[in-house]
Amino acid sequence: MIQYTASYTDQYELTMAQAYFQKGKKDKTAIFDYFFRKLPFGGGYALFAGLEDLIDVLEHLRFDERDLIYLQNQGLNSDFIGYLENFRFSGNVYSCREGEVVFPICPIVVVEAPIIEAQIIETLLLNILNIQTLVATKASRMRHVAGDRALIDFGLRRAQGAGGYSASRAAFIGGFNSTSNVRAGRDYHIPVAGTMAHSFVQSYDNELDSFRDFAEVRSDDCVLLVDTYDTLKSGVPNAIITGKEMEARGQRLKGIRLDSGDLAWLSKKSRQMLDNAGLHYVKITASNKLDEIVIQSLIDQEAPIDAFGVGTRLVTGHPDAALDGVYKLAFANDRPRIKLSENILKINLPDKKQVYRILNNGLTFYGADVIALADEDAEKVGIMHHPSEAKSLHIESYDKEPLLQKVIENGKRLQKPLALKEIADFSKYRLNKLPPEFKRFVNPHKYKAGLSDKLNHERDELIEKIKKNKSGAHSPDSFF
Amino acid sequence: MIQYTASYTDQYELTMAQAYFQKGKKDKTAIFDYFFRKLPFGGGYALFAGLEDLIDVLEHLRFDERDLIYLQNQGLNSDFIGYLENFRFSGNVYSCREGEVVFPICPIVVVEAPIIEAQIIETLLLNILNIQTLVATKASRMRHVAGDRALIDFGLRRAQGAGGYSASRAAFIGGFNSTSNVRAGRDYHIPVAGTMAHSFVQSYDNELDSFRDFAEVRSDDCVLLVDTYDTLKSGVPNAIITGKEMEARGQRLKGIRLDSGDLAWLSKKSRQMLDNAGLHYVKITASNKLDEIVIQSLIDQEAPIDAFGVGTRLVTGHPDAALDGVYKLAFANDRPRIKLSENILKINLPDKKQVYRILNNGLTFYGADVIALADEDAEKVGIMHHPSEAKSLHIESYDKEPLLQKVIENGKRLQKPLALKEIADFSKYRLNKLPPEFKRFVNPHKYKAGLSDKLNHERDELIEKIKKNKSGAHSPDSFF
Repeated sequence: MIQYTASYTDQYELTMAQAYFQKGKKDKTAIFDYFFRKLPFGGGYALFAGLEDLIDVLEHLRFDERDLIYLQNQGLNSDFIGYLENFRFSGNVYSCREGEVVFPICPIVVVEAPIIEAQIIETLLLNILNIQTLVATKASRMRHVAGDRALIDFGLRRAQGAGGYSASRAAFIGGFNSTSNVRAGRDYHIPVAGTMAHSFVQSYDNELDSFRDFAEVRSDDCVLLVDTYDTLKSGVPNAIITGKEMEARGQRLKGIRLDSGDLAWLSKKSRQMLDNAGLHYVKITASNKLDEIVIQSLIDQEAPIDAFGVGTRLVTGHPDAALDGVYKLAFANDRPRIKLSENILKINLPDKKQVYRILNNGLTFYGADVIALADEDAEKVGIMHHPSEAKSLHIESYDKEPLLQKVIENGKRLQKPLALKEIADFSKYRLNKLPPEFKRFVNPHKYKAGLSDKLNHERDELIEKIKKNKSGAHSPDSFF
Repeated sequence: MIQYTASYTDQYELTMAQAYFQKGKKDKTAIFDYFFRKLPFGGGYALFAGLEDLIDVLEHLRFDERDLIYLQNQGLNSDFIGYLENFRFSGNVYSCREGEVVFPICPIVVVEAPIIEAQIIETLLLNILNIQTLVATKASRMRHVAGDRALIDFGLRRAQGAGGYSASRAAFIGGFNSTSNVRAGRDYHIPVAGTMAHSFVQSYDNELDSFRDFAEVRSDDCVLLVDTYDTLKSGVPNAIITGKEMEARGQRLKGIRLDSGDLAWLSKKSRQMLDNAGLHYVKITASNKLDEIVIQSLIDQEAPIDAFGVGTRLVTGHPDAALDGVYKLAFANDRPRIKLSENILKINLPDKKQVYRILNNGLTFYGADVIALADEDAEKVGIMHHPSEAKSLHIESYDKEPLLQKVIENGKRLQKPLALKEIADFSKYRLNKLPPEFKRFVNPHKYKAGLSDKLNHERDELIEKIKKNKSGAHSPDSFF
């Protein structure tokens, strides 16, 4: 399987790198912003995830021997190969904290580096951050509806190949309690959970024998899958027999799992049967094509489900399947940069920036972030401008919290790696500050992002300058 | 990043393995079938991909030292840890050829191994095969509409993390010509392609300078991105100037790329401008949220686009995002096995099986596969039964081609690894045999899968037996 070496990139990063190299432009400082334009799942926020992985990868990124041989065989010139051989990421990275609640347009990560380096890492950065931010957001929506009930990630088998590894990490950041993914458990210290499949039950001549054997071997952590043959006529009765036998041995059956049929109806019937048998303590786990909508529906129906096992729709970020995160040039060759577009919202924000979250009272988020130039005095940012419409908002009297902090300096990480649990806790803490109207699924309230006076002015000037440089009649695609 | 060691699995595979181990059942032969129930994208077929990767992984699968330490710390007993330390996959694998056109219900891969091994590899097998089959199928739909035009995979940045690596491989199997993914190019010998991003153009004070520099450095493979400022007023005119300057140096501009706006309209205008300047040979590449539907529409409008760069919707298998491939027990403990379900289509097929493709005349597919017991004489399979309805079809007079062949015997691969190109060629060859009515996007013709007399009979007997073993009144969820 693959390792993150620097060949984990798009070919065009290398063709551009070669041009920067050969034209003597490679060491000019560039600034790129990572941000997205559209919130996933039609929701009101996203959870930023993937940063610690990115920092790890950037610190150790090299073209290895296989990469270099391959590129040489591709016909790259030997001076440039020589450069790649010694390639290291030596730049600075500014970032929101991992687990932060984030919104469209606002830079989440800012890379400031020699342009050749900033370009080479583009694909890698997007590849790492997009999927984790997507899945952490999806997970947090499930956590939002699940309340205190347990959420277990069951997705590895349907995940997009090795992407499942990152997805399990992101799910934990978004509020999942555990994962079936043993490798993610090993590497990220996520609690692992797992019981039995239908195949285990089927491998026996009868269900009860399979339950008894399993209960004997896993007496401290025994969850029985009850729908292989017939949930209420066979599975639950056999689980009750097994549970009673465990009681007699001074053990406790931990739970049963429902994996098909009408989960609301079956969970109620099963609960009743367990309770009637005195097995009040036996928990009910449900799985099978769950997502936040189905979980919400089950809870609305008062289904007595204690834990939800969620797979495909969590780890693939269904139905979006991708976050539209982009990496746009804001500064190069000693000047702020811009790309025009027919759509003013697609014009990027120039220059080195800072993002401030506006606070209501130190406790909750006001509902707007303001993007300013990095060297502006936050105290003096008194107004924010709508990015595309002639609207503005006075924000003098509010506290403002800077979101971007330097995490890599000259290629070296500045802080000790955070444990995943710390990131998940931070995420929970921040989500608690987000007012509920941004968390609902149907027509969530729109969080605002605005530009400081200075940034707005700088952007307008750059647009004007480019437009002036273009001569003659406008074609329809240059109409703003 | 991760390597495929045996901890790349779901926790429940290990809890079950532990039970098989401790109860002395681990070495009993089991047979599991890999198949899916629903075709992706509402289409009429799927392309099977991922097999060579799976064979590689199975041959070398081990619990490494980190895995073992982790599992020990999880409290697994030391005898079982000892087993895992020596774990190897020692079974047989039967499979359709990679690149085969495949259909629901029919086993695509069959694993025959000691049950403990067959169980441990379940998650890994599903994780590798599901994504590649999904993406290869998606790619083949794009190839279907694109005709001979070039298709380039641009997806890595929006892929689901490291899943993008497998996705690029699968896209090539499905008919893509090249990829932007350098790592996939290196490891799978896929031709790589890539030009420039907006950032390259923006990093210069004017567009023409950026084109000139790029053309100088990449004179043999120069594709210019023309939409950074204004496609028709700036980008194409500057590309024409650059192209003419290249002509004067005896070089040729290879192409331009359109990445925004109305691609149909812009490609026609650009083509005209290029042709008027005598640059008939300059190709037009288009990208920006393409999928098979948009490509079809562009071609219907006679957009003069020579190459399509396809990203997100290809590599994430949008909008499905996952294939519902499953791995079901068919034989264990010396007997064929079955799992009941309220839905007869969800009842698995018992025993060791072979799948035969029915041929019209050796040249094209008849439109049906028949699933038989592995030891049946294909010559004698004269009838196939509908899996859930009381229908049958006479197939005596047709040639039948067995699809499953042994690819791993006692844990060792039987054939030399195939080059990806061979797999892609096979896929193309097989798709040519599939009649067009199965390839259309709207209401494709339904390919049939049926059961041989013997298999059908065996399944009915097993169902009856299980139903008899259940006593008393039926609950609603046991109603067939």
